[in-house]
Amino acid sequence: MKKGILLVVSGPSGVGKGTVIKQVLAAREHMYYSVSATTREMREGEVDGRDYDFMKKEDFLAMKAENGFLENAEFCGNYYGTPRKRVIEKLEKGIDVLLEIEVQGAMQVRASFPEAVLVFIAPPSLAELRRRLVDRKTETAEVIEKRLSTAIKEFACIDKYAYIVVNDIAENAAVHLSQIIESEKLRTERNMEYVKENLLL
Amino acid sequence: MKKGILLVVSGPSGVGKGTVIKQVLAAREHMYYSVSATTREMREGEVDGRDYDFMKKEDFLAMKAENGFLENAEFCGNYYGTPRKRVIEKLEKGIDVLLEIEVQGAMQVRASFPEAVLVFIAPPSLAELRRRLVDRKTETAEVIEKRLSTAIKEFACIDKYAYIVVNDIAENAAVHLSQIIESEKLRTERNMEYVKENLLL
Repeated sequence: MKKGILLVVSGPSGVGKGTVIKQVLAAREHMYYSVSATTREMREGEVDGRDYDFMKKEDFLAMKAENGFLENAEFCGNYYGTPRKRVIEKLEKGIDVLLEIEVQGAMQVRASFPEAVLVFIAPPSLAELRRRLVDRKTETAEVIEKRLSTAIKEFACIDKYAYIVVNDIAENAAVHLSQIIESEKLRTERNMEYVKENLLL
Repeated sequence: MKKGILLVVSGPSGVGKGTVIKQVLAAREHMYYSVSATTREMREGEVDGRDYDFMKKEDFLAMKAENGFLENAEFCGNYYGTPRKRVIEKLEKGIDVLLEIEVQGAMQVRASFPEAVLVFIAPPSLAELRRRLVDRKTETAEVIEKRLSTAIKEFACIDKYAYIVVNDIAENAAVHLSQIIESEKLRTERNMEYVKENLLL
């Protein structure tokens, strides 16, 4: 049984990750989108298990103590993380898993799960990223500048990612993500079982 | 200017490399097939520059002394090699180059040109490789056994290749080779110039 690929996708706010990921999930039959767990309060309109797995703080901390997260972080007193067990189970069944997480979390996954394939979704340019943030018309100028300065900090980690997909047109970026998954499945280190079973005496 | 990809393709005799490579070259507009140089005599029906670049032994050895080959080898008193300059020129122009060479040569390229992408075309099984060799009806049983024992020796080097493409159906194998090329173009280390020019301040 060939294991699935763990695809870790990061990218700055405003780059259009969500659209690209939606298209990848729609195009690929067997791809599991890993939902994060969190201890924060559920907001109106949110659905448990779809937007987040909402957990009690004591449960989260107990699971964290048992190394139950592939990555986790605390923001403003709330915890967020990726439950390890569910991801590993899917991979063992040969199902590819997509993890959409920010740079800090991706670095944790990279350290604890080196088979993960890290992809950074990048904007065509800084100017274009600013334009997309402005076009959303949901953030103040101050928030936009803050997001841009965070983005620039994230770009400094880009060399820790295996691949860069420039999101110029979302359709193309989605195709590129699929090509990365297909190509990673052909990597020699993921096929040594096949070699041993079929080619060696 | 983004450099082209140097794709090094190896695989045992009988696996059907030629068919797969032909389909890749037909499907991809800008892919240069690197023709080997040799000092052996031209055979009837061969065309200089198409089948091989036929060279005088003294010219070959002078070029070899100047590190003019990406890889080279001697068989039965004849020299064979891949002229370095022409390959590098194509890559610098952004043209992908396909090199079809045996395992020893691929190991030389790997050592002297680490950016090269090594792909091993493998048969679905040893039994299927034997079947294909038998079906050719061109070799004696003795030659077939010799080719199989060479193949098994080659399989021992397979972990030095980045990718394994199983040639079950040639069309699929050709698509896989193209996916590898596309995906390799997205590798972070091949895109640091883009990052520096567009994302960093």
